Amino acid sequence: MIESLSYASEKAGMEPGSLVHVGDVHDHVSSITVINYNGSLLEKRTLASVDEIPPYDTPETVTWVIVNGLENVSVIEAIGRHFNIHALVLEDILNTHQRPKFEEFENYLYIVFKAIALQNGDASVEYEQISLLLLNNIVFTFKEKPDDILDPIINRLNVPQSHIRSQGGDYLAYVIMDTVIDEYFALQDTFDELIETVEDELLTNPTHRTMTAIQKIKRELIFLRRSISPLREMLAAIHRSESPLLNERTQHYFTDVYDHTIRIIEALESYRDLISGMLDIYLSSISNKMNETMKVLTVFSTLFIPLTFIAGVYGMNFDYMPELRWKWGYPLLWVIFIVISGFLLMFFRKRKWL
Amino acid sequence: MIESLSYASEKAGMEPGSLVHVGDVHDHVSSITVINYNGSLLEKRTLASVDEIPPYDTPETVTWVIVNGLENVSVIEAIGRHFNIHALVLEDILNTHQRPKFEEFENYLYIVFKAIALQNGDASVEYEQISLLLLNNIVFTFKEKPDDILDPIINRLNVPQSHIRSQGGDYLAYVIMDTVIDEYFALQDTFDELIETVEDELLTNPTHRTMTAIQKIKRELIFLRRSISPLREMLAAIHRSESPLLNERTQHYFTDVYDHTIRIIEALESYRDLISGMLDIYLSSISNKMNETMKVLTVFSTLFIPLTFIAGVYGMNFDYMPELRWKWGYPLLWVIFIVISGFLLMFFRKRKWL
Amino acid sequence: MIESLSYASEKAGMEPGSLVHVGDVHDHVSSITVINYNGSLLEKRTLASVDEIPPYDTPETVTWVIVNGLENVSVIEAIGRHFNIHALVLEDILNTHQRPKFEEFENYLYIVFKAIALQNGDASVEYEQISLLLLNNIVFTFKEKPDDILDPIINRLNVPQSHIRSQGGDYLAYVIMDTVIDEYFALQDTFDELIETVEDELLTNPTHRTMTAIQKIKRELIFLRRSISPLREMLAAIHRSESPLLNERTQHYFTDVYDHTIRIIEALESYRDLISGMLDIYLSSISNKMNETMKVLTVFSTLFIPLTFIAGVYGMNFDYMPELRWKWGYPLLWVIFIVISGFLLMFFRKRKWL
Amino acid sequence: MIESLSYASEKAGMEPGSLVHVGDVHDHVSSITVINYNGSLLEKRTLASVDEIPPYDTPETVTWVIVNGLENVSVIEAIGRHFNIHALVLEDILNTHQRPKFEEFENYLYIVFKAIALQNGDASVEYEQISLLLLNNIVFTFKEKPDDILDPIINRLNVPQSHIRSQGGDYLAYVIMDTVIDEYFALQDTFDELIETVEDELLTNPTHRTMTAIQKIKRELIFLRRSISPLREMLAAIHRSESPLLNERTQHYFTDVYDHTIRIIEALESYRDLISGMLDIYLSSISNKMNETMKVLTVFSTLFIPLTFIAGVYGMNFDYMPELRWKWGYPLLWVIFIVISGFLLMFFRKRKWL
Amino acid sequence: MIESLSYASEKAGMEPGSLVHVGDVHDHVSSITVINYNGSLLEKRTLASVDEIPPYDTPETVTWVIVNGLENVSVIEAIGRHFNIHALVLEDILNTHQRPKFEEFENYLYIVFKAIALQNGDASVEYEQISLLLLNNIVFTFKEKPDDILDPIINRLNVPQSHIRSQGGDYLAYVIMDTVIDEYFALQDTFDELIETVEDELLTNPTHRTMTAIQKIKRELIFLRRSISPLREMLAAIHRSESPLLNERTQHYFTDVYDHTIRIIEALESYRDLISGMLDIYLSSISNKMNETMKVLTVFSTLFIPLTFIAGVYGMNFDYMPELRWKWGYPLLWVIFIVISGFLLMFFRKRKWL
Repeated sequence: MIESLSYASEKAGMEPGSLVHVGDVHDHVSSITVINYNGSLLEKRTLASVDEIPPYDTPETVTWVIVNGLENVSVIEAIGRHFNIHALVLEDILNTHQRPKFEEFENYLYIVFKAIALQNGDASVEYEQISLLLLNNIVFTFKEKPDDILDPIINRLNVPQSHIRSQGGDYLAYVIMDTVIDEYFALQDTFDELIETVEDELLTNPTHRTMTAIQKIKRELIFLRRSISPLREMLAAIHRSESPLLNERTQHYFTDVYDHTIRIIEALESYRDLISGMLDIYLSSISNKMNETMKVLTVFSTLFIPLTFIAGVYGMNFDYMPELRWKWGYPLLWVIFIVISGFLLMFFRKRKWL
Repeated sequence: MIESLSYASEKAGMEPGSLVHVGDVHDHVSSITVINYNGSLLEKRTLASVDEIPPYDTPETVTWVIVNGLENVSVIEAIGRHFNIHALVLEDILNTHQRPKFEEFENYLYIVFKAIALQNGDASVEYEQISLLLLNNIVFTFKEKPDDILDPIINRLNVPQSHIRSQGGDYLAYVIMDTVIDEYFALQDTFDELIETVEDELLTNPTHRTMTAIQKIKRELIFLRRSISPLREMLAAIHRSESPLLNERTQHYFTDVYDHTIRIIEALESYRDLISGMLDIYLSSISNKMNETMKVLTVFSTLFIPLTFIAGVYGMNFDYMPELRWKWGYPLLWVIFIVISGFLLMFFRKRKWL
Repeated sequence: MIESLSYASEKAGMEPGSLVHVGDVHDHVSSITVINYNGSLLEKRTLASVDEIPPYDTPETVTWVIVNGLENVSVIEAIGRHFNIHALVLEDILNTHQRPKFEEFENYLYIVFKAIALQNGDASVEYEQISLLLLNNIVFTFKEKPDDILDPIINRLNVPQSHIRSQGGDYLAYVIMDTVIDEYFALQDTFDELIETVEDELLTNPTHRTMTAIQKIKRELIFLRRSISPLREMLAAIHRSESPLLNERTQHYFTDVYDHTIRIIEALESYRDLISGMLDIYLSSISNKMNETMKVLTVFSTLFIPLTFIAGVYGMNFDYMPELRWKWGYPLLWVIFIVISGFLLMFFRKRKWL
Repeated sequence: MIESLSYASEKAGMEPGSLVHVGDVHDHVSSITVINYNGSLLEKRTLASVDEIPPYDTPETVTWVIVNGLENVSVIEAIGRHFNIHALVLEDILNTHQRPKFEEFENYLYIVFKAIALQNGDASVEYEQISLLLLNNIVFTFKEKPDDILDPIINRLNVPQSHIRSQGGDYLAYVIMDTVIDEYFALQDTFDELIETVEDELLTNPTHRTMTAIQKIKRELIFLRRSISPLREMLAAIHRSESPLLNERTQHYFTDVYDHTIRIIEALESYRDLISGMLDIYLSSISNKMNETMKVLTVFSTLFIPLTFIAGVYGMNFDYMPELRWKWGYPLLWVIFIVISGFLLMFFRKRKWL
Repeated sequence: MIESLSYASEKAGMEPGSLVHVGDVHDHVSSITVINYNGSLLEKRTLASVDEIPPYDTPETVTWVIVNGLENVSVIEAIGRHFNIHALVLEDILNTHQRPKFEEFENYLYIVFKAIALQNGDASVEYEQISLLLLNNIVFTFKEKPDDILDPIINRLNVPQSHIRSQGGDYLAYVIMDTVIDEYFALQDTFDELIETVEDELLTNPTHRTMTAIQKIKRELIFLRRSISPLREMLAAIHRSESPLLNERTQHYFTDVYDHTIRIIEALESYRDLISGMLDIYLSSISNKMNETMKVLTVFSTLFIPLTFIAGVYGMNFDYMPELRWKWGYPLLWVIFIVISGFLLMFFRKRKWL
């Protein structure tokens, strides 16, 4: 399913900063999970209310708050009130039609981007908006759905010696981005396969279905580009940022994510070029087939039309037609038929139609 | 209706700064409405003359002057005289062929852009030019027509606790822009639907009407891009501006409008890509149909042409044609007819034409 | 007529700065007109020789020298000598293949651009090169032909209260540019009409003539873009210029010309996009027509081919053909003819060919 | 074979900096070769373990360590530990899907790019990732396969008077890049030949095979551009670098490599333009052929259809058909046949179909 | 002949700076001509050896050394040794596949670009690489062939009063560039004519030959762009240069060359746009022709097919066919034939096929 754009105007006319969830409604209750850790301790809990978060806000630990589901607007509102988040940021978290961006505020950073998942076996891409709020010791993550995309990070946090346990919230933010963007490579692999399949079909036996498949891939690529290409600009902004919330050492890691993003974007560009060439091949293939059909028709018609004419001539009922009286007239005519056919067949062979 | 360009040259040869309304003439009298407000008071009045405005110009309140209709040139002239507005700005307000732009003057800012409305059910876009003059305590809004596009703002002003009541003129300017640009998302939704409809039609049963619809959408997109894409540059200019008329806190709100604009522009780009792919599909679809027609013709012709020839042969009147005398000649011929047909049908089946 | 490029190489091999008129030769004698004015006085004279100009060069008045026709090279040479103009500038004035540009010298500015006129009723554009030399109190204007393109300015100068009378030479230069570039809007209007006409023709009854018209418009657009798009860069250069010859207040007027130029350039871009879509429609339209032709052929052939075969069968002269002896054989055959036809017509109707 | 992209996602979900070889697995054991040289001495050895490298790290000599094969992850890990290389760099060395880039660290520089080889006789390109680590006196080169691409450099090092012997590690790095990029010109030559062959085939006798060849070249060009075009940016980054590891005199040599890269990139652009034109020629060529087929069919059909009709008329069995009784009826009919044919042949000749 | 790229890889694997002539081999001996001049004296001699040059190197005169032919590598080597030229520059002089560039060294400037000549009457372009070394009092010019492209400059030098005699080496360098680039306008003229010819052919009677001509022009344009477009960047670099070897007054002359280059480049862009439109016209023209062919076939077939069927019916041999016995049966049938034909002709006329 392509990203539903049909609700883009949902909020038109509302006061800016008014909190309404704009996007597809998923049937899940919003849940809040908190993971509090440092090099030596790790605590994971599911919270009942936002009010339980502030006690975790200590300089000794990094606190990661995961909010699954955006239906429960009051949760986001409470977080905004507790941690003094700008109304427009809260609005952006709730509106899942954001393009990836990075915004810097005095006491926190806001990062929003898309997680991408492919349906099995076809080119349908599913998008999920991930919002990050990076405060001094707390990282908030807002997700649309309770899926398992962040589970590898939680598993890694469980290992006390893992690098992530010894780092701050900015490194956690990096790990989240890296994990989500690494999934894009899976997408790339699927597209590689899809395009190869379509290309094979195209060169061997193209049908209208092939054309439809090409158009479908093209369509998905257009929407993917819209979700992925702003990442380049966003990661460059993170790189330029001089916010004290971003450790200089972590910046190098973000550069790595930037490199991955460029690779994905360039792959998407390649796909577009490949796809555009395919349309031409398809058209030329149809033309080729039509030409083949035409040749069959022409060979058959051209072969029999003169013969039928001659047969017609000797089917005429004129009183005086000397040939009809000849004893060898009929066999002679067969000879003529064969000579004419042979001559025409040679002509077609010269034209390489046979 | 596309933006009427036919009057672009109307003013050619006139002295620069000469005030003439250039654009479509709408049949309304120009009206002046003033809304004077601050956190505690709100007054809304319709004025008879421009001379009534200056008393409102006090630092305690924000005064919003809405001029509906540009036919009454003397109104704009009087405002220009009273508030010391540059002749070229007045000229731009009256000429509704402006591209969106932002101009900075010492004591006021000039912003011009387009409000967009869609006719019901088809791709016809209607444009209305909105000009803003942002002075210290006064915001002038010039509109072509007395429509209800700004009504949501007036409603919000009626609520004493609304954020807007506690802010200055620059925030009002932001709210106007935001309201107008939010309408673009409705446009986006309509285009989404239109394009989806056309695409479905294209893949199932494309006709010349589909082609015309595609061309119409393409045409509207071209003109839309011309009205919308300069917004990006204009909002970047507002962002760079260091005018004391723009409060630093309001700048963040303009960034939000900028984000929305980028989203719209990117959506328009996507539509263009989608549309361009459709033309190719249409062409290939016609070619496909032609090929089908050709196959029917070829199968029929090729099947009967040799049979008709043979029938013609035995319709000849030669005195000496032994086959004609055979008792089983005629039934035998039917066997031959059937064998030849069967052979040809196998040939077509092998070619996948049947 | 498109801009004649055939003489582009005329000067190849000559010494740089050697003064030869390169361009189309017009059959007019070069004439020199001088208009000397300030707020209170206005004098207009036709001069016999360049030597009469220097006396006008006083700080009290603005002197506008209009040279119509470039055939008389000695005039340009004399002006160069009198006012110390660089040899390459003189060369550029005489060579009418310049692209619009702005050059800054210590004691004068050089501006060159194209005036554009449309032949009545078709897309043929005529170009005239206008060169401006802006000295301290003198403005030189060099035109290829003695047409009336600058007459509106002269008329305005006749009015003592007009703004232009109170301003300096830089404002005059602005007014000249503005007047010439306003003519571009007339061009835009003509193209709007032309394109609309062609588009209508295309959607109703496209012929090879339509195709030729499209190509002609495309061709003119290509050459127009070459003449107009450098204006953007040139006006930006004027804007950046810190020459004391350009009053700061006049700069704002040049910004207005810049805006107009951008509008024209964007309109040209739109035309290009519209035109490119038209070629596709034309192609699809031809394909559609071909398909219609094919269907007529196929329906007719397919309907009669089997019937003709059957008629052929019963025209055979076999001695033993029982059907021929049946009393109702012939009427029965007509029933068969009608049944087969009906069946085929249903088949075509199902395929939506009828 | 195009660059295998199918493993791009192999590492998804792993901890950043975790060392796993990502890429095609080649069946070779990793080998470490060290070449230690200065103006007077040269020593070349194959090492058993990374631990043998540090003793070579003296300011008197340049040490070049070549690691062939990336399967043995522990070798790269050991080098990272010994020379304090960032985990992400080690990860990049092992992941052979990198785009060319240059990264600057305090005590070393990291350069990664692709060596390119062409299979004999067709457009299949093979890629090998080359990573360079430039430390103060040591240059590490990591290659995927033990091929002979760097042999010319080793041969040159054997000559005591060669320029390279008197220079530092940065010059060695330059020589490696220069050697690899010079191979691109061989690629360019092969493409020149391939495109020329295809173009000749296209203009004389295009077939579906030609189309497939064009698409194959296009595909390879898309992937080549992805591997080569980032070199421009990378060499510009080297040029801007102020690292003390890059001698100012060596910078000029890198500029030379930059020039070569631009030439290759521009050649690739030219190929793309040439290829895109070819698809149009192919389509027009098929259309031409189809038209020829159509003409043959039309000439034959149109010539015989009226004649056959006339023969059919005189084959009718009406009792009263006076022509049938005429003595010269039959010869007269032949005259009519010939006249009609002649007339039609003239008609076709006028249309230039014969 | 297009620029031979087949030797691009000739030097692969050689030591950088090794001097080998890479390019087409011309059958001429390298010759060295020296022209020594200032305002009062002029000496022109052909030298036998490079050793004769240094005595000319005096501040009183400008010395212009022209080396015709690059086969004699030792000449270039000797010049490099005498005047301390960087090995890579010498290499670039000898390798005639350079793209135009400008390089600044402490005591000299290196400029390389292409002279272009057109074969008579077709679009084949010939390239010659011109290298300039601008030292303090000496200008070296290296040419591939002993042609007469620089003769106009020598002629001008012969005139004692010519501007060039009073200027330094930088002005000479400018004059050489100007002379070579002025030749490009001749090229432009030829292309103008070629394109006009092709376009006329295209609109009146396009054949496969037209298509081939279009492709040839397209091909040449691709290679021309590669040789010419880097000039823009190179002349901008000269403009930015602050080398004491370039007199400030000469800089203005280089700006003039820059303007010419932009004009050429824009002309090439226009040609590209014109050419791309032509391919579409060609395709639509073929389609049109095919449609005409189809109509002829359809009109003929459709007209006679029903008539032939009817004739077939009355050629049947049923015993009981009452119509055959009617006295007016046969004439009546002719009436039916004519009515059917008339009806069909009207149908075709309504469809505008006749």
